[in-house]
Amino acid sequence: MTVRIGVIGTGVMGAEHARVLQGNVSGATVTAVADTVYDRAKAVAAETGARSFQSAEELITSPFVDAVLIASHDTAHAEQVKACLTSGKPVLCEKPLAPAVGECQDLVSLEASSVRGNPLISVGFMRRFHPAYQGLKAQLREGVIGQPLMMLSSHRNVRSYPGGDSASTITNSGIHEIDITAWLLDSPIETVSWHAPRSTSVDGSRQDPQVFHLRTANGVLTIVDVFLNARYGYDVRCEVVGETGSLELARPQQTMVNQGLGRSRSYADDWRPVFADAYRLQSQAWVDSLASGTPSPLASATDALNATRVAEALIQSMNAGGATVAVNPEVTIQAQSSPGSPLERTLSHVH
Amino acid sequence: MTVRIGVIGTGVMGAEHARVLQGNVSGATVTAVADTVYDRAKAVAAETGARSFQSAEELITSPFVDAVLIASHDTAHAEQVKACLTSGKPVLCEKPLAPAVGECQDLVSLEASSVRGNPLISVGFMRRFHPAYQGLKAQLREGVIGQPLMMLSSHRNVRSYPGGDSASTITNSGIHEIDITAWLLDSPIETVSWHAPRSTSVDGSRQDPQVFHLRTANGVLTIVDVFLNARYGYDVRCEVVGETGSLELARPQQTMVNQGLGRSRSYADDWRPVFADAYRLQSQAWVDSLASGTPSPLASATDALNATRVAEALIQSMNAGGATVAVNPEVTIQAQSSPGSPLERTLSHVH
Amino acid sequence: MTVRIGVIGTGVMGAEHARVLQGNVSGATVTAVADTVYDRAKAVAAETGARSFQSAEELITSPFVDAVLIASHDTAHAEQVKACLTSGKPVLCEKPLAPAVGECQDLVSLEASSVRGNPLISVGFMRRFHPAYQGLKAQLREGVIGQPLMMLSSHRNVRSYPGGDSASTITNSGIHEIDITAWLLDSPIETVSWHAPRSTSVDGSRQDPQVFHLRTANGVLTIVDVFLNARYGYDVRCEVVGETGSLELARPQQTMVNQGLGRSRSYADDWRPVFADAYRLQSQAWVDSLASGTPSPLASATDALNATRVAEALIQSMNAGGATVAVNPEVTIQAQSSPGSPLERTLSHVH
Amino acid sequence: MTVRIGVIGTGVMGAEHARVLQGNVSGATVTAVADTVYDRAKAVAAETGARSFQSAEELITSPFVDAVLIASHDTAHAEQVKACLTSGKPVLCEKPLAPAVGECQDLVSLEASSVRGNPLISVGFMRRFHPAYQGLKAQLREGVIGQPLMMLSSHRNVRSYPGGDSASTITNSGIHEIDITAWLLDSPIETVSWHAPRSTSVDGSRQDPQVFHLRTANGVLTIVDVFLNARYGYDVRCEVVGETGSLELARPQQTMVNQGLGRSRSYADDWRPVFADAYRLQSQAWVDSLASGTPSPLASATDALNATRVAEALIQSMNAGGATVAVNPEVTIQAQSSPGSPLERTLSHVH
Repeated sequence: MTVRIGVIGTGVMGAEHARVLQGNVSGATVTAVADTVYDRAKAVAAETGARSFQSAEELITSPFVDAVLIASHDTAHAEQVKACLTSGKPVLCEKPLAPAVGECQDLVSLEASSVRGNPLISVGFMRRFHPAYQGLKAQLREGVIGQPLMMLSSHRNVRSYPGGDSASTITNSGIHEIDITAWLLDSPIETVSWHAPRSTSVDGSRQDPQVFHLRTANGVLTIVDVFLNARYGYDVRCEVVGETGSLELARPQQTMVNQGLGRSRSYADDWRPVFADAYRLQSQAWVDSLASGTPSPLASATDALNATRVAEALIQSMNAGGATVAVNPEVTIQAQSSPGSPLERTLSHVH
Repeated sequence: MTVRIGVIGTGVMGAEHARVLQGNVSGATVTAVADTVYDRAKAVAAETGARSFQSAEELITSPFVDAVLIASHDTAHAEQVKACLTSGKPVLCEKPLAPAVGECQDLVSLEASSVRGNPLISVGFMRRFHPAYQGLKAQLREGVIGQPLMMLSSHRNVRSYPGGDSASTITNSGIHEIDITAWLLDSPIETVSWHAPRSTSVDGSRQDPQVFHLRTANGVLTIVDVFLNARYGYDVRCEVVGETGSLELARPQQTMVNQGLGRSRSYADDWRPVFADAYRLQSQAWVDSLASGTPSPLASATDALNATRVAEALIQSMNAGGATVAVNPEVTIQAQSSPGSPLERTLSHVH
Repeated sequence: MTVRIGVIGTGVMGAEHARVLQGNVSGATVTAVADTVYDRAKAVAAETGARSFQSAEELITSPFVDAVLIASHDTAHAEQVKACLTSGKPVLCEKPLAPAVGECQDLVSLEASSVRGNPLISVGFMRRFHPAYQGLKAQLREGVIGQPLMMLSSHRNVRSYPGGDSASTITNSGIHEIDITAWLLDSPIETVSWHAPRSTSVDGSRQDPQVFHLRTANGVLTIVDVFLNARYGYDVRCEVVGETGSLELARPQQTMVNQGLGRSRSYADDWRPVFADAYRLQSQAWVDSLASGTPSPLASATDALNATRVAEALIQSMNAGGATVAVNPEVTIQAQSSPGSPLERTLSHVH
Repeated sequence: MTVRIGVIGTGVMGAEHARVLQGNVSGATVTAVADTVYDRAKAVAAETGARSFQSAEELITSPFVDAVLIASHDTAHAEQVKACLTSGKPVLCEKPLAPAVGECQDLVSLEASSVRGNPLISVGFMRRFHPAYQGLKAQLREGVIGQPLMMLSSHRNVRSYPGGDSASTITNSGIHEIDITAWLLDSPIETVSWHAPRSTSVDGSRQDPQVFHLRTANGVLTIVDVFLNARYGYDVRCEVVGETGSLELARPQQTMVNQGLGRSRSYADDWRPVFADAYRLQSQAWVDSLASGTPSPLASATDALNATRVAEALIQSMNAGGATVAVNPEVTIQAQSSPGSPLERTLSHVH
């Protein structure tokens, strides 16, 4: 059985998703692409042999589309996901599920009330499928370093995208660190604080770098630095320090160059080479779950809601000069439906 | 269009090929598997949803099979490839194409005489699709280190397979080093010699480790050590030293473990984790070429013949106490058909 | 001219100092050692050919002693340094100069009022002589990474010494990070905060690990983790992140071991192998300055006072639940005497 | 007791030796320097406070000189060492002891016939004092990798010195690899062969790089590449592969630089930074043995003779097109005097 997928949004991210789904994922075919910039949609359609649409709504309701991947502008996500729920079609939405907590909350509630069978919403926190993160989590679970105590992460980009501000550093880039922290430590983030190193002079529109403290329910303190204009390369690091040792993501490396009195390996210019495998494996896992009728192993709408809540708390801390802020768990209680989720463990921990 | 593939041989290698083709390659489906050990074939058939055969011949001629992957015992390769040629079906044969030069020669001739359109035979020298080797070759071509002068390779396995001898180290394991050397340096191997370090006491059936000198037509000297019982891990290394610098394959690494007064990364126990991506990408490239009707980008029958000739020369050197032996190029002259191939360059170089 | 040195304190640290001064430093000879545990003094005296004393006072005033190295218990430092000042003899005091700010302040004042010529007090912040830290500082000054923005340091010990508490983590171990931060960034630390990860279960007497935020006058935020019971090895790390790149201390390594499916280098069990060269070079630099009559290039009494003030502020933050605390600069204004010191720059910066 | 040392030869190497002996070695003082280029001698004399001589002979016989370090031109070594023997003064001669086997042989014989007490001649194979090589040898002895089988070494310089030829690559640079191979494996080299990769175009005066096969009495095969114009950096590598694992010298590294899409550490431009510690520790060990009247732990005249014999055999192999050549042990039998030396073991092994 081949799953017929429609891709909404054909910018850099969406076009790449379409190519991978069509060319490197088993059991999937891209039958439709949509973009409000219709020429862009047509180009990707030609490349992949899909139909093109200008309207996301038409793509979603097309009889040639079994499942939808959303890579449109962040602000369009919520409405498009809703349309998928209405059509009863599984959807893989790029992060963020929606920029605001309220919208995420609405989607979680809508999904909970409407779904029979497997939840329809999956969210593209692809790092969970990165083999190195998976290896690290497996070793944590095996007890290689005992009880984790502290986690140190770095997220360095070569340059920031235009149009952002200090808050968007948190919601666009920091959100990956937020999700992976809770996932790796298998514990929800309960309190946060935000800190400002000296800021680079090359980006006047935001504080850059930023430092986050994330405290999970299990007591572990995670310290993350996010530096969008690090210039030197795309560099994602993570170390978990436990009672008997520590685990680190190794730096990806393919060739070493000895030249000009230096021995070096190269950094990627952006996330694509580093996480290409994670995207591919995430898409394969999603398609496999659709084909087999099993629950999606991807991040859920609730996971996305939780991450957005943490981002919101970090913005509050930023606006409050670095104060420690509790992540608001209230509404989630009602939304929480899947037994055994990290959230449930939190609640039982709290009560 | 989905390419329907039949897999012959369902041992460790064939079963893995079937799984990857079915589950991780776009545009392919495994419709048939065959094994003389019929229960083994049935198990893999059940897992992948394919039909099972006991007879390779029946699989090859089945109307449900568009193309054939051969992962049977080395000694069966030649006959099965011949059957594919007879049926006019594309075939990806695991290395070696055949153990003896004469058989390879026959297949090259048969393919040349029978084919209209693209050559039917591809050979599984999957290292050519390993991203790190590809990166190294690309950097060589870009001139990052100038003219190459010397290449140093190591091939270390944890343990040898039972039943082999000193010659099979060359034909089974060394053959990968032979092919990748000519491919990376883009120059055929012309002379070789074989050398014996002190041999390990754990394998009385062969000299282990062994050292090869491979001299390519462009004058570069490649020194390879092959150590099947290295015990410490599966470890493949390669450095090309040029006039202005050197390039090395980096060691694969995912997580670093700090523990017990040590900082370590782990070695794989065998080739599978190291070359999983190379196998997947090779299969994808093969399927893509079949779907699009373009020539296979995999190693050709002539490439396999050339590698087998070099292996034969190494065995001669071994039997002659390490003498320098010229690789016999004679018969290849007739077989040689693709203009611009490394072989042609050799011949023009010789004349 | 050979400088005749008396060593006070012949525990692990003092005995090592005596050995290095006698056996690996040019132009020095150890003529006297003293310890209240007199047998210990006699053993080291026998080993180095020195006289032995039970009384530090007698050693200091001995006519056979030109200069004094103090490696006694922290609580004895202040009185012994005072005796050296009284005798007009140069003294290299192991850190801390004294545990409390007031005592350090007294010594700074006494030295300022009593000295003609070069200051007599040097303090053993030996990291300043570690070749890797020196290389890192040189590259910072050359502008290799532009303006520094953020610094990340880790200080991991295998095990804590018995008898300490959370405050002594700061004053004994953290003090090295405090001094090296101000020295590397060439800027005094102005505000600090203290943070607690989940604490290890193996040491009930203290919070362990601890995290410090150190903000220097130039705006750079330094984040340090200090983990005394890290178990896995003695591991000191430092990364300075700047506007155009970052610089890291490389991990010390001598041999790589490939064994048992792992590739590893070993960690030291404690600071000795890691900083052996730093201690030797510091002692050589001190002896050279004594022999040549030039000012000591080691950390000064004022440097030690500044570090102790920062430690005090961290303890205040710890007691205040992690609040940001300003480092008290008041008294130092009077004490500050050496033109061009970091402190002076701070003051001119403030005014 | 301070050992008064005279240094003959004040070029780059001799001047550095004088500085280290005077400034970084305990128990030594440089009282005299000599150079046929007298101005050069005077400059180093001024720097170190020594007397200057134009005549090596005068320095050797000076009553202010207890021991002699020879860093003059290779061709002057033999005569100067003889003069030291005649004067009964201990001498540390830079490698080679003498360029020709005959001269080395004469010195070995002369020393054996003239010495009462400790042998007077030490030879500057300083690698034996490099902490990483010492660590590697210690781990070998502890059996970390079981019985050694194969050793792989690389010796890469940035550029060749003018005036050399293919033979001088062996006698000047390769000689270090020859000595360290026998020392590490604790077994004399019995047969050798010489091999030529493609030669670099930047040095028309010699084959460069060169490859040596060195077979020790214990059966281990060592493969060394020596590349004087490697350009990319000064790079010395060594791996010993044994029955249960392998040991490698780690690359020296102090800081890592992240910059411009690269992560790099720097190579030294020449041997000085890499082996500075080895030279210092060798000089300290020599001075300590002189002060204490114990036998020198440095390489002996017989070690130097053995290395020169191996170099001679490699040159024979080079002139014979790479043939395997036995190292001539004949004359050594008479000269051999120190019980328990590697040579003796060879002989008993042979008989």
